[in-house]
Amino acid sequence: MSREDPIIALDAMGGDNAPAEIVHGAVLAARDLGVRVALVGRPEPIIAEMAKHLPAGRQAAAKPANLSIVPASEVIEMDEHPASAARHKKDSSIVIGLKLVKQGQADAFVSAGNTGAVMAAAIMYLNRIRGIERPSLVALMPLGGKLTVLLDVGANADAKPQYLLQWGQMAAAYMERVWKVARPRVALLNIGEEETKGNQLSQEAYKLFESSGLHFIGNLEGKDVPRAAADVIVTDGFTGNVVIKTMEGMAEFIMGELREVMTSRFYYKLAAATLIPAFNKLRQKMDYREYGAGPLLGVDGLVFIGHGRSDAQAIKSSLRVAREAAQSGMLDALREMAPARVRAG
Amino acid sequence: MSREDPIIALDAMGGDNAPAEIVHGAVLAARDLGVRVALVGRPEPIIAEMAKHLPAGRQAAAKPANLSIVPASEVIEMDEHPASAARHKKDSSIVIGLKLVKQGQADAFVSAGNTGAVMAAAIMYLNRIRGIERPSLVALMPLGGKLTVLLDVGANADAKPQYLLQWGQMAAAYMERVWKVARPRVALLNIGEEETKGNQLSQEAYKLFESSGLHFIGNLEGKDVPRAAADVIVTDGFTGNVVIKTMEGMAEFIMGELREVMTSRFYYKLAAATLIPAFNKLRQKMDYREYGAGPLLGVDGLVFIGHGRSDAQAIKSSLRVAREAAQSGMLDALREMAPARVRAG
Repeated sequence: MSREDPIIALDAMGGDNAPAEIVHGAVLAARDLGVRVALVGRPEPIIAEMAKHLPAGRQAAAKPANLSIVPASEVIEMDEHPASAARHKKDSSIVIGLKLVKQGQADAFVSAGNTGAVMAAAIMYLNRIRGIERPSLVALMPLGGKLTVLLDVGANADAKPQYLLQWGQMAAAYMERVWKVARPRVALLNIGEEETKGNQLSQEAYKLFESSGLHFIGNLEGKDVPRAAADVIVTDGFTGNVVIKTMEGMAEFIMGELREVMTSRFYYKLAAATLIPAFNKLRQKMDYREYGAGPLLGVDGLVFIGHGRSDAQAIKSSLRVAREAAQSGMLDALREMAPARVRAG
Repeated sequence: MSREDPIIALDAMGGDNAPAEIVHGAVLAARDLGVRVALVGRPEPIIAEMAKHLPAGRQAAAKPANLSIVPASEVIEMDEHPASAARHKKDSSIVIGLKLVKQGQADAFVSAGNTGAVMAAAIMYLNRIRGIERPSLVALMPLGGKLTVLLDVGANADAKPQYLLQWGQMAAAYMERVWKVARPRVALLNIGEEETKGNQLSQEAYKLFESSGLHFIGNLEGKDVPRAAADVIVTDGFTGNVVIKTMEGMAEFIMGELREVMTSRFYYKLAAATLIPAFNKLRQKMDYREYGAGPLLGVDGLVFIGHGRSDAQAIKSSLRVAREAAQSGMLDALREMAPARVRAG
């Protein structure tokens, strides 16, 4: 399945800034990085947005040859009911994009749209990899220039120890293949370091991880999450989702308060102006946009789900990472892992 | 049980900065606020620390009359196994302090010591309030000058819907009595706003809260936690513990990175120096020390557990809040709530 020059299907209609930022990101990836992109969605707005980024006067001719459009008449909105939208909107950009992957016309699908709908549609149309019990959504946490991935962040609110093990195994393969991390350090999220800590799920998962052959470094606590103390942190989808949203909320709170106190006096404002490059550097250090979308691991195809707020830069990175994943043979690696796990279990 | 001028038993030996900061905090509360404090622990170090804060030359005479010492020969260390330490160290400051409460010689107990040991000992020596299934530890989150409480933060890694309801009811009573919040807004922590979101626990708890008579405002997500979107946020002890530690880790990460970028160039340092008061103001806005220790709700006595890093200011606040709780009749209110719940359940 993995080809030298993969085609990435991109949901042109998904995300808070769709289609403008999505199409812009596709143009950047196609032009600057040479990624082959199939933009899926309503042709008219896609063409209109594309025109903004191509040399005036000769737009049709100047369209990069590696950028194509696959029509899809429907749009799944950000607040639509995921499963029902995935089932009924068969001509949506999400469903059409996933079908391109299913049929081998694309090698990966990237969307910044309705997360629940992409997950539901991916499971519905691509199915799970044989032997994988539950697909899992990965969040990328780029903090201080290091990448840690956290999963599950919402695909499975209730989990079993065996799911957690499979997620750890898949995420380790992803870190090795896509981010070239040798022997990724895998940890469980818990409320204490000792193996007897935590809820029943964590305690049972600990035993499975210990004898898994993974580079398992034990339990990490919430305070370790922003510290890149592991390459892969595994938890259930309820806790994981609450954690990434708490981190987001906390960053927003602190940056907002910082802005407020620094503009509260005239001479603060002057000093703060000098520091703008420093603040920008800090912001960059927490910037997910360089790393792109997180994978939905365990479905039988490469699917990447980005933040709803993704801008052109984030989309460009996502397309780069999706190509990297397709070239790396990650999916084949996951497929080969699965039966071994079933036998072992 | 509630008296006009309550006595607060204070664990002089518990916490990263014990006994120095603890004793200092007791002196401040006794002298500045007139709180009656019984310092529990090894008399020699307590007296030595006390001497540092009393006028030189006439220390014995100058000791505030409302400050007493109750000897306890043992110390439970911060990293000791909680249940075993609580059971075996019968002459520890924690066990002696709780027994003072049990016997009515003190009206509340405050400790910044080994959280697990205080919880275990409190349940062991004070028992649960009749009808309360599981005591719960409350974290105080003072963000932006508003107080939100989150529970459970570690007493119960696994929870049932009925526990969550009782915790919400107790925390609402605590906010009303101690912090004078009329009709506290109570929310469940979840991964989406709709009642059908989340794990099985949250979905079942939602139904109980809806028909509870509480001022239930529904589900909140992780990003809402730092926003004071509710007065009381309820979740299981696993998620709650991970959340407060993630918030702490995130604040440390951002403040650390901020320090780093701002000292990376000479002219940044100059500008940053001007901003020091602004940064201090920001730090104050996230400062738990003004609010003191969080209550362990559901044990049959008033118990407050502070951050291990508590300094004199935090201890002073904790003693003030513990006195407020004792005077408010909160414990009687919790005792009266309990049987009603049992009948209703």
